[in-house]
Amino acid sequence: MAYHPLTEAEAVTYVKRLPNLFSEGAELSSKEIGDGNLNLVFQIQDAATGKSVIVKQALPFARVVGESMPLTLDRSRIESEALVFQHKFVPELVPQVYHHDDELALTVMEDVSDHVLLRKGLIGGNRYPQFPKQIGRFLAQTLFFTSDLGAHPFEKKAWVGKFINPELCKITEDLVFTDPYEDHPGNNFNPLIRNEVEAIWNNIPLKREIAHLKYGFLTRAEALLHGDLHTGSIFVTETSTKVIDPEFAYYGPLGFDIGALIANLLLNFAGQHGLQPDREERESFRNYLLDTVEAVWNEFVSQFVQLWHKQAKERSAHVEGFWQEYVNRLIQDSAGYAGCKMMRRVIGLSGVADLNSIADDHVRAEAERLALQIGQALVLERKTIVEATDITAIVRREAAKFYQEETV
Amino acid sequence: MAYHPLTEAEAVTYVKRLPNLFSEGAELSSKEIGDGNLNLVFQIQDAATGKSVIVKQALPFARVVGESMPLTLDRSRIESEALVFQHKFVPELVPQVYHHDDELALTVMEDVSDHVLLRKGLIGGNRYPQFPKQIGRFLAQTLFFTSDLGAHPFEKKAWVGKFINPELCKITEDLVFTDPYEDHPGNNFNPLIRNEVEAIWNNIPLKREIAHLKYGFLTRAEALLHGDLHTGSIFVTETSTKVIDPEFAYYGPLGFDIGALIANLLLNFAGQHGLQPDREERESFRNYLLDTVEAVWNEFVSQFVQLWHKQAKERSAHVEGFWQEYVNRLIQDSAGYAGCKMMRRVIGLSGVADLNSIADDHVRAEAERLALQIGQALVLERKTIVEATDITAIVRREAAKFYQEETV
Repeated sequence: MAYHPLTEAEAVTYVKRLPNLFSEGAELSSKEIGDGNLNLVFQIQDAATGKSVIVKQALPFARVVGESMPLTLDRSRIESEALVFQHKFVPELVPQVYHHDDELALTVMEDVSDHVLLRKGLIGGNRYPQFPKQIGRFLAQTLFFTSDLGAHPFEKKAWVGKFINPELCKITEDLVFTDPYEDHPGNNFNPLIRNEVEAIWNNIPLKREIAHLKYGFLTRAEALLHGDLHTGSIFVTETSTKVIDPEFAYYGPLGFDIGALIANLLLNFAGQHGLQPDREERESFRNYLLDTVEAVWNEFVSQFVQLWHKQAKERSAHVEGFWQEYVNRLIQDSAGYAGCKMMRRVIGLSGVADLNSIADDHVRAEAERLALQIGQALVLERKTIVEATDITAIVRREAAKFYQEETV
Repeated sequence: MAYHPLTEAEAVTYVKRLPNLFSEGAELSSKEIGDGNLNLVFQIQDAATGKSVIVKQALPFARVVGESMPLTLDRSRIESEALVFQHKFVPELVPQVYHHDDELALTVMEDVSDHVLLRKGLIGGNRYPQFPKQIGRFLAQTLFFTSDLGAHPFEKKAWVGKFINPELCKITEDLVFTDPYEDHPGNNFNPLIRNEVEAIWNNIPLKREIAHLKYGFLTRAEALLHGDLHTGSIFVTETSTKVIDPEFAYYGPLGFDIGALIANLLLNFAGQHGLQPDREERESFRNYLLDTVEAVWNEFVSQFVQLWHKQAKERSAHVEGFWQEYVNRLIQDSAGYAGCKMMRRVIGLSGVADLNSIADDHVRAEAERLALQIGQALVLERKTIVEATDITAIVRREAAKFYQEETV
């Protein structure tokens, strides 16, 4: 079938043709539940059994703040292949793909909408005690087994070729690493923080560090990344985690995925300034968030290092002490990428609800300033970091400074 | 035509069919001049005009020290595409490709055999004053314009995919970065230096640094490398340089190409211990070699930085001072890769004539010890290196130590 965006009715017809999904004659409802900026997302449900699937179809453009730009449909193939790939390693943490159609740029997959978006859950003040162990496993497994440590060099190089993803990488290259750090028309920030933003545009040592991090994003083909692992790409319940939307998947530096997650936990940390007016509640939830940052890293690293010792195929990986230096570098990368990801969400084109849902412009500006402070510190001080507590210590220090200054 | 190794007569028939090479009815001679280990190399000549071309055909195996292993014919495509690519940037420094045949794994190209192999020239004690400027230009142009600094990110990513070269990379991964540093049956070293070799096998800090360098070779897709830039891949005259044989071409760290060249100049430096018995002559030629190392780096870096300032498309490349930190890291990488390349030529499967042509086992062992000392120092001390004179100072220091110990 030639590419065209499906209607709700066409999505039902399409799904009915696939074997083993619904019983013959099932009465299926169809509802488009996407935000329509990049993709159509149909939820197809059999009312009789309650069983449902998701039909996700890429649109040939991206719509951002009203403007529309063409965007490759090949991202649908990449997303579907990445999901299948990740599902092999961590079947319980990734929706199952039932069917992919390259021509329609469409994937039929497991419906995980009994879960809630982690971002939404955190904004609502909810806690997910199982999450660090589960996402730590997701990161350790998907990154280790696609890297030169855990894969045969022939396999790995074939996967690098398969996941070359120029257009979506370009979005990251521009929106995360470049536009926010200069006076670019695509930026979109609260006018009340213009001074702080201009200070960043003029901070040469900071921009130099960001240039190094960008160069790493462009060149370091280390592992198959999710590529966009923020808290809006993760569905959770109290007991379960599902990672979705890997359309930005490509071979890049491991720290970029870990950093994305840490950044988004810390953006929520900053957002709590406006989200939670009760000081004690706020402190308590912030402690939970920092505990989560530490636990995510610690879970990841303990699982990753275990895989390394038991399953690394690469002979040089077993040289005494190499893994420690590798992990040291990795936490520093992760902190650096986290810092970029925080700043871009404040300055750049695309914000996050953790900050944007703060209605009062002045209160939001304060939360944004805190996010910028933490982001800068993570980039500039990353080479001093050895353990996850070094990251959270920077956050606590910046928050303490911030409240001291606010009350002066 | 289905793949089969051509005979000398078939090579003539093949070339005669191509337009614009020889006049109709030309009487062509054919001579296989390759070493037969990896490829057939036919020189086809028109006696009447003196005009000649090279027909290079890949064999489906590699023959090394008597053993034969299968090896992809795809390397012929890679080599031919890399030659065409490099020729675009530096037409005077790379043989022109007239024709490529994927099925026969065969390339017809410019005959540069009026030049001499640089390795042979240096072993003969000859000097090539134009060489640093020319090879500096080759390195600066080919590395800059294929990197994220000088290419559009879409182009660069397409080229990464085109030059994925798993089998030939694996040869480097094993023979340069892994086998020489453990007791591997493929190694092939002078029994007289077993103590020194075993000391390397037991030197954990050294092996850890080599593991980092190998990881960089595996993951850092920075620029399209020649991939095997030793002095046996370079033809020279007093006034001209031609770089051949890029069948190992792939996207890797820039320092690997620069390091390969430095290593081979320094292997000749070590070899002079046995090649040149006259002490004064030896000192003089060694000074020439070290001057060449410095000039190669300085020529490269001045041309590379000029391209950077004038032609870098990557916006972040223009952040103040970024280029300096980039170049600092690059000379350190280059020194590290040079060190690995030196050690592997002494310990590993494949030696170099600069050492192997020393007939006396004891004298050769001394030269090999010196090469190992220099190689180790370059790997272990690379992070202290800022300028080319820091590299040559390490070499001079190791040579001075060596002759002190020899005379005690």
